[in-house]
Amino acid sequence: MPIAKQIGRMVEASAMIKAMFEEGARLKAEHGAQNVFDFSLGNPDVPPPAQFKQVLKDLIDDDEVNHGYTPNPGIAAVRQAVADYLSAEHGVPFLADAIVMTVGAAGALNDIFKTLLNPGEQILVTAPYFVGYNQYAVMAGAVLKSAPSTADFHLDPAAIEAAVTEKTRVMLINSPNNPTGAVYSKSELDELGAVLERASYRFGRRIYLVSDEPYRKIVYEAEVPSVFQSYPHTIVVNSYSKELSLAGERIGYLAVHPDAEDAGLIAGTAGFINSMLCVNAPAMMQRAVARLQGVTVDISIYQRRRDILCRGLADAGYEFTVPLGAFYLFVKSPLADDMAFVNLLKEELILAVPGVGFGAPGYFRLSYAVPDATISGSLEGFKRTRKKV
Amino acid sequence: MPIAKQIGRMVEASAMIKAMFEEGARLKAEHGAQNVFDFSLGNPDVPPPAQFKQVLKDLIDDDEVNHGYTPNPGIAAVRQAVADYLSAEHGVPFLADAIVMTVGAAGALNDIFKTLLNPGEQILVTAPYFVGYNQYAVMAGAVLKSAPSTADFHLDPAAIEAAVTEKTRVMLINSPNNPTGAVYSKSELDELGAVLERASYRFGRRIYLVSDEPYRKIVYEAEVPSVFQSYPHTIVVNSYSKELSLAGERIGYLAVHPDAEDAGLIAGTAGFINSMLCVNAPAMMQRAVARLQGVTVDISIYQRRRDILCRGLADAGYEFTVPLGAFYLFVKSPLADDMAFVNLLKEELILAVPGVGFGAPGYFRLSYAVPDATISGSLEGFKRTRKKV
Repeated sequence: MPIAKQIGRMVEASAMIKAMFEEGARLKAEHGAQNVFDFSLGNPDVPPPAQFKQVLKDLIDDDEVNHGYTPNPGIAAVRQAVADYLSAEHGVPFLADAIVMTVGAAGALNDIFKTLLNPGEQILVTAPYFVGYNQYAVMAGAVLKSAPSTADFHLDPAAIEAAVTEKTRVMLINSPNNPTGAVYSKSELDELGAVLERASYRFGRRIYLVSDEPYRKIVYEAEVPSVFQSYPHTIVVNSYSKELSLAGERIGYLAVHPDAEDAGLIAGTAGFINSMLCVNAPAMMQRAVARLQGVTVDISIYQRRRDILCRGLADAGYEFTVPLGAFYLFVKSPLADDMAFVNLLKEELILAVPGVGFGAPGYFRLSYAVPDATISGSLEGFKRTRKKV
Repeated sequence: MPIAKQIGRMVEASAMIKAMFEEGARLKAEHGAQNVFDFSLGNPDVPPPAQFKQVLKDLIDDDEVNHGYTPNPGIAAVRQAVADYLSAEHGVPFLADAIVMTVGAAGALNDIFKTLLNPGEQILVTAPYFVGYNQYAVMAGAVLKSAPSTADFHLDPAAIEAAVTEKTRVMLINSPNNPTGAVYSKSELDELGAVLERASYRFGRRIYLVSDEPYRKIVYEAEVPSVFQSYPHTIVVNSYSKELSLAGERIGYLAVHPDAEDAGLIAGTAGFINSMLCVNAPAMMQRAVARLQGVTVDISIYQRRRDILCRGLADAGYEFTVPLGAFYLFVKSPLADDMAFVNLLKEELILAVPGVGFGAPGYFRLSYAVPDATISGSLEGFKRTRKKV
């Protein structure tokens, strides 16, 4: 076997998810894709804002624009545009140097983990958490540890404090959250900041907060407080995947709080790592997003879908917390065995992801980045399945 | 210091190159960019082929095209288009499954190294070699070892055979070569294949050949033989950075020979690693290059520049091998200390990269991906500097 051992083990560990997707593809081939209710993927289907096409065409027609390498941390004017926007949004004065343009949020997470973590050091998350975090930790040679969250999927400061060790270098949070849709409040972020400050003091080294915020603009009747205001030793990771529906174009950034310990060194090193992992973020998309700061997709589409789905599932007797952000519903499995319940849903041609994949058995995740018709067409199936158990 | 130790050491090691670029920027600020002859960067300045703009516009106007996530190893139709093109070019029957679309050749190298190498295992290259290889090795936790090449920068089978150890998992070659412009012949690739076959037998495990070919189409009075024909256990890494002048857009691929040992497992795992490093190659560029298979920039521009530069430097008394490919000239330094000579060139406002950065002290590299005027304007300065030593 020529495959690196640890990588081979990860491929095996992902076999469950792979089998699930293959089963979904089989169902679609057998029954027709339009007859399968696929809630398994978080791939935004809302179109990009109308301005996006025009911005691209303007760039194509501009003979001053080339497609050559950009500086590794991004085009200076693009970093400045992001810094200006973030300064206003967060009330923190960012310079362009604090911004690194990246290959989506995934690229930003790989950059910052590789920058901050020696092999064997730890990243602390709260469960449930996005399945990819474990993989990014492995890429950095680091170890992902998880602390439980509260019953309604919010931060539990005591659990976090108990889980920090002398090997914890990074606390990683995600708000609005995938898979739960929770949005952390200002007061819980303040509490988290206090926990991290105490723990940094206790272990004699700085613990950095990495806040992964790709769903920041996908919120309903809620605002996402600025995490920079709660803890200065913070790096925000973001992408335009959801707010501009550009997930496949791989454009995002990281931003280092100017008051973070060794802020300049961290941003500079993350840019250096960026050069090794991907050289630079895609050039034309860098230029495009610089012209679209603050523009978003039509959020009301996601909100309408959330409402149809929540109403339908509540009627059918499912239990869940109504999500305030992102486009996921994290539902309590009527069976303790969430894999078994997800298999029951499959009999109704409904595809969901079991909570065990997010470190939270006993739940399943539905993505409502799907057409309204998928949601309304599935509700009878959800109802029948609920009655079976 | 919050920076991971090994990464911090790499940042320090790159300080020489960084200082060089800063010095270049200072000279441009002081004397005006148009008065500085900058041969230090391999950033293609020849415009993309005329079709490229139209292909992009067609994609933008096509409402069937979205910007969502693509499958991790790439869009099926794009992989098929690349497989079909490579099948005809190399005379090897590639299926779409053998192709992984990547974030440029850098992404492909990171994918395949992480796939094949356990921490501490070795990648063997021949010196001189592209400076980034060492960094990609570090990203994979692997170790880069180098064997000398022949006096005219070709493969030295005996030196390679002597340098292979029980830890060698990958032999990495680059033809047309950066920094030397050498193009390896069919017979030397055959000899290399025989060496790797014997070494694999001797150490009881397969050594894979990774062939990095971003300059494949940038050749003059030469053809690049298919390395797949010389050794089946080969993965070719390529990008559209140079052949379509899209370096900043980060689009490339890797292709696994169908007869390589465990070919399917290797391609599948590389696609899996791709998901962790960057999720997928940029979507719109995947679609664009699928429509531009076999199209290239105007190679005659590079050839003309090569000829002006070679004639001028030969007249001035410099020694070099005329490059058959890529857009670099690797010149013998008239001083044994190449750093010292590069500093002398700087007095004439000429920027070059010392050979020591490529594992080949005693030489310097000139990139002729620069306007003709930069070349012609620099020749008097080259002449004066030659006379000084």
